[in-house]
Amino acid sequence: MTQYKGQHHILVAIDCIIFGFDGKDINLLLIKRAFEPEKNKWSLMGGFLQPNETLDEAANRVLKQLTGLEGVYMEQLQVFSEIGRDPMERTVSVAYFALIDLHQYEKQISEEYHAEWFLLSKKPRLIFDHDDMVRLAQKQLRYKAALHPILFQLLPEKFTIPQLQNLYECVYDTLFDNRNFTRKVMSTGLIVKLNGKDKSGSRKGAYYYRLDKRTYKVKEDAFLNFVPKADKFI
Amino acid sequence: MTQYKGQHHILVAIDCIIFGFDGKDINLLLIKRAFEPEKNKWSLMGGFLQPNETLDEAANRVLKQLTGLEGVYMEQLQVFSEIGRDPMERTVSVAYFALIDLHQYEKQISEEYHAEWFLLSKKPRLIFDHDDMVRLAQKQLRYKAALHPILFQLLPEKFTIPQLQNLYECVYDTLFDNRNFTRKVMSTGLIVKLNGKDKSGSRKGAYYYRLDKRTYKVKEDAFLNFVPKADKFI
Repeated sequence: MTQYKGQHHILVAIDCIIFGFDGKDINLLLIKRAFEPEKNKWSLMGGFLQPNETLDEAANRVLKQLTGLEGVYMEQLQVFSEIGRDPMERTVSVAYFALIDLHQYEKQISEEYHAEWFLLSKKPRLIFDHDDMVRLAQKQLRYKAALHPILFQLLPEKFTIPQLQNLYECVYDTLFDNRNFTRKVMSTGLIVKLNGKDKSGSRKGAYYYRLDKRTYKVKEDAFLNFVPKADKFI
Repeated sequence: MTQYKGQHHILVAIDCIIFGFDGKDINLLLIKRAFEPEKNKWSLMGGFLQPNETLDEAANRVLKQLTGLEGVYMEQLQVFSEIGRDPMERTVSVAYFALIDLHQYEKQISEEYHAEWFLLSKKPRLIFDHDDMVRLAQKQLRYKAALHPILFQLLPEKFTIPQLQNLYECVYDTLFDNRNFTRKVMSTGLIVKLNGKDKSGSRKGAYYYRLDKRTYKVKEDAFLNFVPKADKFI
């Protein structure tokens, strides 16, 4: 006798939340759903888990099939399992998310797929529980960005402190005090001042900086300040 | 036409990782699996998602059915989806975990269920990918405990600093320098010195402390030191 017989077999879906920073704003990649229910409504990039793939593989396949995007490192966020979340039939969905440099991947996103970037602040209403997924991904992004310098990687090779501050302000949807922000960023030891200035933003201009890649490598997990050398254990 | 027809319908399982601190060591709650395959082998508490429940509800039901434990707040850890992870048939499993005060729940764990606590450091080999699940839960616990004072809640109302240090040493499986540990803990402002001393451990004795619940409430998320008042956004 087995406990497996007669059990509830269901569909397992994957939905991908892709945030893209364009140098100024955070955007969200969406597609128009190609089939019923909710055909032609805006949706995250989703699909069903297939027999021959793991969830990570499925997330990458779905993203590539629907947008052309390849090689994006996505992180498992959470499984959504409300009973009626898909009106067609019981489906649990594993949400994956990533934050990318929009320009770096721009060319990969092929016209034929009808994927579109929306300003995160102006995104349309999404199908099913996809709005909840996006909200949770934003929360996770804020949590991670407060602990790890992940946002530094989204800027161009040479960047200014106002650019960095603008990115943080986008992610946290708030304004930071300029002087405090500069002081905190400088104190991380993560950036190195260059000689040139960007004069496009103000007459006085803003110095260019670059990421200190060696320090970044060391500090990537060095947020752990209660446990001595905690990064050793992670 | 629908995209749902002919899709791959599979089993979705839940597995529960329950760590229990007994005042001295971290323990892991296990059961002997009651059915094939791997009958009578040590296993996490697991079961299949039913039609009328969400994953959170399923995790609570499974834990209660197999151990008697109720009201334990478990957190979704990750979905495990390797293709052959369950030799019987394709099953993805959502791992949940919790860290509890073993003594507080001791009475709930009924004899009839054959659940047993094992020292985490001496646990038997588990079925399927359950060892991987436990390892990931340990990692997540270390990450969380480095950022939030969650471990403070596991101690009795009156506790000593050596007791707290011992708990941290259990979780991180290492020894901390006594003086540094005391200094860091005191600097958090999370604990209040009491008058009495515990003399069981040494002739000199160790002062009792209690958690400052008001500060704890404030500091619970106050690890975020890069973004000013980041806890506002989480």
